[in-house]
Amino acid sequence: MNAIPSELQQQAEQLSADVVRPIPGSRKIHVEGSRPDIRVPMREITLAPTSTLFGGEDNAPLAVYDCSGAYTDPDATIDLARGLSPLRASWIAERGDTEVLAGLSSEFGRKREHDPKLDAVRFGSRLQPRRALNGANVTQMHYARRGIVTPEMEFIAIRENQRIEAITEAHLLRQHPGHSFGANIQKLITPEFVRDEVARGRAIIPNNINHPESEPMIIGRNFLTKVNANIGNSAVSSGIAEEVEKLVWSMRWGADTVMDLSTGKHIHETREWIIRNSPVPIGTVPIYQALEKVDGRAEELTWEIFRDTLIEQAEQGVDYFTIHAGVLLRYVPLTAKRVTGIVSRGGSIMAKWCLAHHRESFLYEHFEDICEIMKAYDVAFSLGDGLRPGSIADANDAAQFGELETLGELTKIAWKHDVQTMIEGPGHVPMQLIKENMDKQLEVCGEAPFYTLGPLTTDIAPGYDHITSAIGAAMIGWYGCAMLCYVTPKEHLGLPNKNDVREGLMAYKIAAHAADLAKGHPGAQARDNALSKARFEFRWEDQFNLGLDPERASEYHDETLPKDAHKSAHFCSMCGPHFCSMKITQDVRDYAAEHGVDEQVALAEGMAEKASEFRAAGAEVYRKA
Amino acid sequence: MNAIPSELQQQAEQLSADVVRPIPGSRKIHVEGSRPDIRVPMREITLAPTSTLFGGEDNAPLAVYDCSGAYTDPDATIDLARGLSPLRASWIAERGDTEVLAGLSSEFGRKREHDPKLDAVRFGSRLQPRRALNGANVTQMHYARRGIVTPEMEFIAIRENQRIEAITEAHLLRQHPGHSFGANIQKLITPEFVRDEVARGRAIIPNNINHPESEPMIIGRNFLTKVNANIGNSAVSSGIAEEVEKLVWSMRWGADTVMDLSTGKHIHETREWIIRNSPVPIGTVPIYQALEKVDGRAEELTWEIFRDTLIEQAEQGVDYFTIHAGVLLRYVPLTAKRVTGIVSRGGSIMAKWCLAHHRESFLYEHFEDICEIMKAYDVAFSLGDGLRPGSIADANDAAQFGELETLGELTKIAWKHDVQTMIEGPGHVPMQLIKENMDKQLEVCGEAPFYTLGPLTTDIAPGYDHITSAIGAAMIGWYGCAMLCYVTPKEHLGLPNKNDVREGLMAYKIAAHAADLAKGHPGAQARDNALSKARFEFRWEDQFNLGLDPERASEYHDETLPKDAHKSAHFCSMCGPHFCSMKITQDVRDYAAEHGVDEQVALAEGMAEKASEFRAAGAEVYRKA
Repeated sequence: MNAIPSELQQQAEQLSADVVRPIPGSRKIHVEGSRPDIRVPMREITLAPTSTLFGGEDNAPLAVYDCSGAYTDPDATIDLARGLSPLRASWIAERGDTEVLAGLSSEFGRKREHDPKLDAVRFGSRLQPRRALNGANVTQMHYARRGIVTPEMEFIAIRENQRIEAITEAHLLRQHPGHSFGANIQKLITPEFVRDEVARGRAIIPNNINHPESEPMIIGRNFLTKVNANIGNSAVSSGIAEEVEKLVWSMRWGADTVMDLSTGKHIHETREWIIRNSPVPIGTVPIYQALEKVDGRAEELTWEIFRDTLIEQAEQGVDYFTIHAGVLLRYVPLTAKRVTGIVSRGGSIMAKWCLAHHRESFLYEHFEDICEIMKAYDVAFSLGDGLRPGSIADANDAAQFGELETLGELTKIAWKHDVQTMIEGPGHVPMQLIKENMDKQLEVCGEAPFYTLGPLTTDIAPGYDHITSAIGAAMIGWYGCAMLCYVTPKEHLGLPNKNDVREGLMAYKIAAHAADLAKGHPGAQARDNALSKARFEFRWEDQFNLGLDPERASEYHDETLPKDAHKSAHFCSMCGPHFCSMKITQDVRDYAAEHGVDEQVALAEGMAEKASEFRAAGAEVYRKA
Repeated sequence: MNAIPSELQQQAEQLSADVVRPIPGSRKIHVEGSRPDIRVPMREITLAPTSTLFGGEDNAPLAVYDCSGAYTDPDATIDLARGLSPLRASWIAERGDTEVLAGLSSEFGRKREHDPKLDAVRFGSRLQPRRALNGANVTQMHYARRGIVTPEMEFIAIRENQRIEAITEAHLLRQHPGHSFGANIQKLITPEFVRDEVARGRAIIPNNINHPESEPMIIGRNFLTKVNANIGNSAVSSGIAEEVEKLVWSMRWGADTVMDLSTGKHIHETREWIIRNSPVPIGTVPIYQALEKVDGRAEELTWEIFRDTLIEQAEQGVDYFTIHAGVLLRYVPLTAKRVTGIVSRGGSIMAKWCLAHHRESFLYEHFEDICEIMKAYDVAFSLGDGLRPGSIADANDAAQFGELETLGELTKIAWKHDVQTMIEGPGHVPMQLIKENMDKQLEVCGEAPFYTLGPLTTDIAPGYDHITSAIGAAMIGWYGCAMLCYVTPKEHLGLPNKNDVREGLMAYKIAAHAADLAKGHPGAQARDNALSKARFEFRWEDQFNLGLDPERASEYHDETLPKDAHKSAHFCSMCGPHFCSMKITQDVRDYAAEHGVDEQVALAEGMAEKASEFRAAGAEVYRKA
């Protein structure tokens, strides 16, 4: 027994107030689908009416995509020790292609389950694991290819549309045409479109049958750009309770998926707590845990140990596995002259193994065996880029692109098994080389979703790599990347704390949204338009609440104009009350309404008249209310 | 008398310790030019030797561009009340085309000078102002067009090269080819190239003859991308002492120019303190002060008041003026249907004036008169985009592009007078519309330098607009923008404090450097390469010191691994001491050194031998020292 269990008991039963406090100015809504158990969560932001000074009108509430799960739902009861409600359980069961197992299939899992020393840290109340019936394939891709639209697919269609039907026409019409580089952007996402994209392998729905608590989401270039947050402890720092808290915190700030990258102790138990309490898909890198099982000696890893780890994690409910099966023996020497060699942890483990055994890795040699496991639980592949560049100098080199070719070959094998697959990407890449990465990935991987870390566009800003990488992330998202793995300010320096997670997610939500705007996703600009309208009309609270981080915006505003009255002030601290750039426009607008802006001549003539009126009225844009 | 003077006296005499503390791991150097008074400042970062584990070698120090002036020079004596040493004074005097005036030419300036109530806030010890001799033109463009290479131009050539001759060949060879969209990137900047670019109008050297304290710098697409920081008080907040402190702070974090956007009281005196203590060019928006002179009533502005303001500021030494002469009457109604109307303060003042008078502004009508003033002091134009979009919805609209066309016409008029000119740009622009801005600006303004605010790539992140805009800034910098005006996290919410200035500048130094890398500026990648090499070799201090913010990097590292011993640790808190992705590479490298990486077959054969060696040696990458 050590310090962690007791801390956990305290913290696990009650999340700290700051991770579950209500998000200002908004409420949880659920949009029902074709059956009552399809209830798609969204966050609806309520807006104040426009002041009469600006013409006075009601502003329709705006529904936004919501990853925060039950934690921001006042009607939900949160009990971390019981976990979330398994909303997909009946969908999975009714397909009739799975069985409930009598116990865990993995040897390691069983050992942990019966170890009394772990009683205090073990998550207690999980359901028995499920597995596909012998010979069955339970992946969403398999269903999609057989023409079946699952409830998951319908859920996703509703979710992606973000109630576009409720967006005012004014906001919709104000959207600039996008430039999508060949993406197939839809005006309205239908369940059939979701099915078709999954069938083609252009999108994945990571949702293990053992993670029925997950709210379905999709990753693909023809859908909204997603972001992933990494959490996880290491031998040096951080315990279980802290990781669960980070999970909830990450989702609050918009993480679409979360990877648990723990390498420290209680790796199995930490994961169970995370999955049982996560409405977002959870990804892992199973080789990390396999390495722990051989005490860190990479060369002692075996297929048997790795296989048992995959089954252990698949039965816990991990939704996607990063598998570095593309690190081939012949690529390893290509990294020798690099500035930063191999920087992927998984890649370095496999490279070490390959060197020690002088043969291709068990991940590569047993790839079809891995597919068999993936399809029995519907775990998606995230084919890892073990040779990604760790510096600008190493970008787009032979090692990186050699591995990418292999990932393309493996994608085709996975698809043969109807196993959902995405591809991981770099890393550190200067701006002029980013598009080559995206184009090559689309080409060699048959448009399987790309999932990139950044890329970081320069190496010279440790402490600010959320920014160096948000630049690259926005660009590659625009070019067609489906999911962006966040980078926090602590990248290269240390493990992120809660504030770093928030900073990293905000940078990446910005990048993802900027990409959606640039690609021209219908309705994507509605939030920008609503926020800018609020800004122009000095509806301060609405401006804050429509932003990605209402609390931060409000705090910053209050630093210079703290009084409540200033929240409806028709000026701000930048220009002061004396004059304000926004004031003039209302006058122009009033004038245009009277004379019609389409008629330039009439306007020019009317100017003289307006000029004297304007001066006669005291040259004040606003009259006193 | 009010509270500000006494505060000022205290603070002005001694800057706070955090703005002048030495920058870790580096020293000030001066590179001498063709004459001993051309002494170009740089910051040289000293590097530790590589540990013997990684082959042991010395690492050459790296010189980086340095905007921090005398404030980081231990040999300099700082006395804010006396101002900086006027390093360009003799260059200006020896040209023999200027005269020292007996007193200030501006009526307002003289009034302030003799107002005893201002004694306590007035900067005391300035030199008498200079002006061109009657009929003379003292702009750098004028000299350039007559084939004269000024000391300023030579200074700049040395500065831009950043001692490229001292960069090791390994770092230089490791640079990726850039993609410069038609820029004319040089392998080595010569004084003659500087002259030629200034003569063509493709670059400007903002350095008023009344600001001899300035260290010459250049703004143009064929030079390093520059960043500007805005400071300045408003009626609501901030006083003189705080602004001087912000100036020094901004330069410390890399501001290439600083704009004083004060709109509050003591606007004249604040500016004097700033200029006398600034080694970087200072820009202003003279209409702000002119407006103060008419108590904020835009319609009461006159050419006479504005003209006196220009002369007042020109004789103080302002290096560039933002002039919103492109806001024409016919463009104003085009803003009426915008979501956010007119968001530029200067633009809104001029629009109000145009509405009130029903005629074109005095800025437009007196543009050639303004040119006469500019060339008498060598003040550069920064032609303001008064109609820039304030929201994504308003990007690239008829009002914005109409004004840009007019700015192009005005550029040609300014060039007729040999007045240096740059063009201001937006604003809020989604990614897919950024390039159109750059291309159109280059086309209609004859490649005059573009100077953009961001652009912000989405409206939905108040509190994080340094990031929404750094994305757009990096992209437009790559496409050809010459200077990026920073945005701080407080944008739209309040005035930036010192921390916001730091955050904003770091985001923009990243954007500018990412742009330089992408354009392929020779030597630009050397810093990335040196930092990544340090990172790979676990030279922690070197990694921090090569970064844009050594202090922040070091603090972040210490949060999880605080002990000094960890600064040379061959692991970090992300993976812990147990295994580390970087460890494996050295082994691969050793192997490659033995067998030669070019020979794939030999490598494959050698693998078996290596594998057994590797295991026999304990499968440890590093042996104990």
